[in-house]
Amino acid sequence: MLAIGDELLSGRTKDRNIGHLAEVFTVAGIDLKEVRIVGDEPTQIADTLNTLRRTYDFVVTSGGIGPTHDDITADAVGAAFALPVSEHPEALRRLAENYANRGLEFTEARRRMARTPEGASLVDNPVSVAPGFRVDNVFVLAGVPSVFQAMLDNVMKELPTGVPILSAAIHCPWPEGEIGGPLRDIQKQHPGVAIGSYPRSEDGRHFTELVARSRDAGALEAARAAIEDMVRRTGEDRAARGA
Amino acid sequence: MLAIGDELLSGRTKDRNIGHLAEVFTVAGIDLKEVRIVGDEPTQIADTLNTLRRTYDFVVTSGGIGPTHDDITADAVGAAFALPVSEHPEALRRLAENYANRGLEFTEARRRMARTPEGASLVDNPVSVAPGFRVDNVFVLAGVPSVFQAMLDNVMKELPTGVPILSAAIHCPWPEGEIGGPLRDIQKQHPGVAIGSYPRSEDGRHFTELVARSRDAGALEAARAAIEDMVRRTGEDRAARGA
Repeated sequence: MLAIGDELLSGRTKDRNIGHLAEVFTVAGIDLKEVRIVGDEPTQIADTLNTLRRTYDFVVTSGGIGPTHDDITADAVGAAFALPVSEHPEALRRLAENYANRGLEFTEARRRMARTPEGASLVDNPVSVAPGFRVDNVFVLAGVPSVFQAMLDNVMKELPTGVPILSAAIHCPWPEGEIGGPLRDIQKQHPGVAIGSYPRSEDGRHFTELVARSRDAGALEAARAAIEDMVRRTGEDRAARGA
Repeated sequence: MLAIGDELLSGRTKDRNIGHLAEVFTVAGIDLKEVRIVGDEPTQIADTLNTLRRTYDFVVTSGGIGPTHDDITADAVGAAFALPVSEHPEALRRLAENYANRGLEFTEARRRMARTPEGASLVDNPVSVAPGFRVDNVFVLAGVPSVFQAMLDNVMKELPTGVPILSAAIHCPWPEGEIGGPLRDIQKQHPGVAIGSYPRSEDGRHFTELVARSRDAGALEAARAAIEDMVRRTGEDRAARGA
């Protein structure tokens, strides 16, 4: 994924699209492999997009497709693909119809939202009409979270979904430092399962959330059982030590 | 910045460090130019870090320096710099003292948190002792937000701060599509100021938050005046049209 916008790098806007896409992809069995955030720099956007689209099966971008001068994503995508950018007839029709229905002037600024690289297909926008678009393996979506989410629902129909990743969360009442050794052994014995360890603390007590993830239900259950057993034995050891 | 962790790419954890660093850097007058998020893949972490540290003045990483098997950042940073990774004597001393004081066992897993690439200097951790570290222009911090923030405060003392970016926010009660044209002209006339346009809507009404940013107070004021004038004139035009 490529998130675009100066406002993300200045801290003015806190991104909410990366986490959403990550969740949607995980449920669909698609691995999100990398995210980059860049500002409103045409060359950096184009170069980054070229790297990502050549490295991964698909790329989703967010941001920079509105009506104002700082919305430069369509041009940057065109530059990346060496394609001319012009008004997409169907996008123009939808926008013109929408503004006519609402009795609003179809300004030159609003016409900008119809611009796509030549040959792009549209990604429907049920929230605010102005569409996203697809060029080859790149999906170009809006940055406003409600619009991004609605567009992403449409993108998902075009992506080959995989076997969803199953996950099992195991609460461990002991801190990471007391289970790190045995947990590493369990990870070694269950190579088909990715085991994540997330330290937390509350009221001065340290505990750990363990999450096992796999596409294989049987492997996941075996790892879960091993982790639960380890957590139980750690508790018994602590009790025996009087901890 | 480089944020590290499978949990960020699966959506299980929503990153809170990127936005924080962006805000802290902006206040300090440091430009955040790019962020990447990668998973717990040693080669990808090392390759990405090598690209970023050669491209930018400084790199800050988050995540992957705890006591468990999935905490691989120290090794990946060592690989990136082709430096051996071993227990840092001062880090080991701090950790041993801390666990002794708390009457806790200094397990092998906990000793892992003392590992740094050779020659690293430590980044103090006032929250939970286990330090981050610096190698050359790379600062390696924890992923837990409270710890990341405390470590970042210490990193800021080592960074050359620039002239802070000043910003002016102008509320525009009209939608982006009605001001996009004149706003672009203003941007052209004020090249030393970056003007961002952020569409919002509430109760079905569309409006726009405009933000002008510059390191030059005079240039910023001139742009602000031009934008406010444009917003006012747009309102008068609307009133004249009976909109």
